[in-house]
Amino acid sequence: MVFWKRLFSNSETVTTSGTTQFDGELLELTDDSLTQSRIVFSTERDLDLYELEELCDAVGWARRPLRKVKKALECSYLVVSMWEVRNNRRRLIGFARATSDHAFNATIWDVVVHPTVQKQGLGKALMKYTIKKLRSDDISNITLFADPHVVDFYRRLGFVLDPEGIKGMFWYPN
Amino acid sequence: MVFWKRLFSNSETVTTSGTTQFDGELLELTDDSLTQSRIVFSTERDLDLYELEELCDAVGWARRPLRKVKKALECSYLVVSMWEVRNNRRRLIGFARATSDHAFNATIWDVVVHPTVQKQGLGKALMKYTIKKLRSDDISNITLFADPHVVDFYRRLGFVLDPEGIKGMFWYPN
Ligand SMILES: CC(C)(COP(=O)(O)OP(=O)(O)OC[C@H]1O[C@@H](n2cnc3c(N)ncnc32)[C@H](O)[C@@H]1OP(=O)(O)O)[C@@H](O)C(=O)NCCC(=O)NCCS
Ligand SMILES: CC(C)(COP(=O)(O)OP(=O)(O)OC[C@H]1O[C@@H](n2cnc3c(N)ncnc32)[C@H](O)[C@@H]1OP(=O)(O)O)[C@@H](O)C(=O)NCCC(=O)NCCS
Repeated sequence: MVFWKRLFSNSETVTTSGTTQFDGELLELTDDSLTQSRIVFSTERDLDLYELEELCDAVGWARRPLRKVKKALECSYLVVSMWEVRNNRRRLIGFARATSDHAFNATIWDVVVHPTVQKQGLGKALMKYTIKKLRSDDISNITLFADPHVVDFYRRLGFVLDPEGIKGMFWYPN
Repeated sequence: MVFWKRLFSNSETVTTSGTTQFDGELLELTDDSLTQSRIVFSTERDLDLYELEELCDAVGWARRPLRKVKKALECSYLVVSMWEVRNNRRRLIGFARATSDHAFNATIWDVVVHPTVQKQGLGKALMKYTIKKLRSDDISNITLFADPHVVDFYRRLGFVLDPEGIKGMFWYPN
């Protein structure tokens, strides 16, 4: 762990080799028990923008100007990255960030897990980590805007659709 | 105007006495043409917290710890207040704020107009001013969460409900 801790000052390892521990949940990360593999979460915001772009490309998101991505990372309240570490090499496999007023509301944006490691519980772990961070800062209202195909993914995590009829709205220039 | 400009360094007057000009729209503010009255918008975030609490009380919102309100004002991306100025006295009659990543997304919170001046177009003017500010900062995605009874208010302003099936969700602790 010493190597890793030096790389990321704000990082937190939630796994041990082979299996992954998330908030008390034990999750099988790989079938190959000989492979040393760890999943590490970090709140470091000084990410390699090209690595992040590659991750977003992999799920088919439209490219965004890197200058604006950089600004958004700097000015988000929370930036969470998820890394796979194997034989002292790291690979960005997940990302999420949140805007906030640092007091009442936080809104989560850009949740993504690399297609090669989807459907293994990592998206859930990423979101749980993000929520835990926001809650530990005493932020009461955690919100997001969900694409239709991921509404159920968020629902399983405790997100409620249109609670008490509150509706998500987007402004479009007339 | 000199008096006012000194009070609020970040203020903008959009009215002249008697009538109110919003983005080229002319709006009758008062029937009494003898009363000197101006509506002024400000982005000053150093508001009197008690005055703001009074405004929120007036529309029946639950009280919030002033310490957290202070933090939220400091850490919001944009804070807009709307003032009625009459005979050199000012009165807080409207408020809105937005969180943002300063690049892609902004989310508008706590939109309120004092009940005594509702239904005169001031809520619309407040929102237009807020949107104009966000757009002038090149923020592309303006969002909000609307209570059911104000969905139509926002719709008239160009906000779209669940565009392409994107859904607003709120996290509740399980
Ligand atoms: C959405 C995403 C982050 C999920 O990541 P993941 O690692 O595959 O998710 P997990 O394996 O942790 O799934 C957790 C649970 O949600 C379910 N789930 C995952 N994706 C789902 C989906 N699209 N719809 C419904 N349920 C889904 C899983 O079956 C699992 O259920 P379980 O707890 O009952 O076993 C990932 O698919 C992704 O990056 N998609 C592309 C980007 C995207 O659409 N992001 C959201 C933008 S709003
Ligand atoms: C919602 C609120 C800000 C509107 O302010 P307002 O000054 O009364 O609104 P305006 O007079 O500018 O109204 C603009 C337009 O919206 C309409 N409108 C206003 N309130 C409306 C409502 N509740 N439902 C539907 N339409 C509404 C007006 O009829 C007007 O329509 P027009 O342009 O066709 O003439 C104000 O009622 C308020 O502060 N309410 C309490 C707090 C609240 O609920 N805030 C929203 C939290 S999500």
